[in-house]
Amino acid sequence: MYQQSYNNPNLRPHPSQHRPQSTGPAPIYASSGVSRHSHRQSYQAPPPHDPQLFQYFSAVDQDRSGSISVPELQSALVNGNWTRFDLDTVKMLMGIFDTDRSGTIDFKEFVGLWKYISDWQNVFRHFDRDGSGSIEGRELAEAMRSFGYNLSPAVLTLVEQKYASAPSAGYGSPPPGITFDRFVRACVVVKTLTESFQRADTDRDGWVQLSYEQFMSMTLSAP
Amino acid sequence: MYQQSYNNPNLRPHPSQHRPQSTGPAPIYASSGVSRHSHRQSYQAPPPHDPQLFQYFSAVDQDRSGSISVPELQSALVNGNWTRFDLDTVKMLMGIFDTDRSGTIDFKEFVGLWKYISDWQNVFRHFDRDGSGSIEGRELAEAMRSFGYNLSPAVLTLVEQKYASAPSAGYGSPPPGITFDRFVRACVVVKTLTESFQRADTDRDGWVQLSYEQFMSMTLSAP
Repeated sequence: MYQQSYNNPNLRPHPSQHRPQSTGPAPIYASSGVSRHSHRQSYQAPPPHDPQLFQYFSAVDQDRSGSISVPELQSALVNGNWTRFDLDTVKMLMGIFDTDRSGTIDFKEFVGLWKYISDWQNVFRHFDRDGSGSIEGRELAEAMRSFGYNLSPAVLTLVEQKYASAPSAGYGSPPPGITFDRFVRACVVVKTLTESFQRADTDRDGWVQLSYEQFMSMTLSAP
Repeated sequence: MYQQSYNNPNLRPHPSQHRPQSTGPAPIYASSGVSRHSHRQSYQAPPPHDPQLFQYFSAVDQDRSGSISVPELQSALVNGNWTRFDLDTVKMLMGIFDTDRSGTIDFKEFVGLWKYISDWQNVFRHFDRDGSGSIEGRELAEAMRSFGYNLSPAVLTLVEQKYASAPSAGYGSPPPGITFDRFVRACVVVKTLTESFQRADTDRDGWVQLSYEQFMSMTLSAP
């Protein structure tokens, strides 16, 4: 039904995923002129007060308030195809890293956010086998399998359609691929829903009994 | 648990909702200089070949291909606060109105889409009691109740947080309001999830038994 061997890819991708397999485009960068190279140098060993990272932080913090708001973060993050991150992805990132629940990201929180995005970049490049800059059906299936999710072809198709950047162009044709930010969201949503299901499945038989209240709470709690 | 008296607000808002209660800003318009007034004239009685509506269609169809793509639709639709519609909302609209599943919207499909958005505009204005241009907690609760959904305060809070344009600014403070496009999406998601639950609840006792496959399919099928 589903596997327990989940490796928490969101915070610690599998070591092999740290080595990019493709030379595809950098799927994300800050709008402050941060190059993929310099950013890689910074995330590999970010000291607590990394001056370069602080420079990136300051560039994103456009109004110099000392913390990053949702609009500031959204305008700083773009995918490899130049599309902006969805608001839902930005809110999801804030939800994970705004640990003091201030509604903004301070520098300490930014360090974690930066590493998280960098790690996901490597995961994305790893699974983007053809280097297209987006994740297509077979690549998505492989990613989900690697993370320990045993999703049926029907559920994989739903994920592929839901997180594609556009609907299919005509009956039978596959939807376009999933850009970086939507891939991260898809993975976190599958993780959140699976964990919710596992918590509800107390006797581990692969079935849950849910009230309307529980069903709505579980589904609306996912990003 | 949930009520059956659902009035299908997505396609046919309740008559009373056709009369705007507030004079708040027009929450949406096409980028082609369509005024709220002229657009109202067109949707109230759209003849099959409304020349004005065709003019709007042509303005959105930037590459003059004869049909509207997702990026064209997304760049034409903005909320009252000038933010663009989320990709997920645009894809949801395409999913409803691209009836021939071509991946684009032709003029015939556009007529339906235009009316749908216009109807939702009136619903939005009706529930935006304070004319702020966004739907806040109490307004959301009233909207959901009017649509026939009996959501608990906890579920309403989840909807409010999920579809707000940003997280809460600090513990205890409510999230900012829900902009037009996200309000429409929230309503369609609650409708889709509730109907999924009702279909699964064959004996109508307010409880469902779901496998992991069913649970994932139901949740991932919502926009």
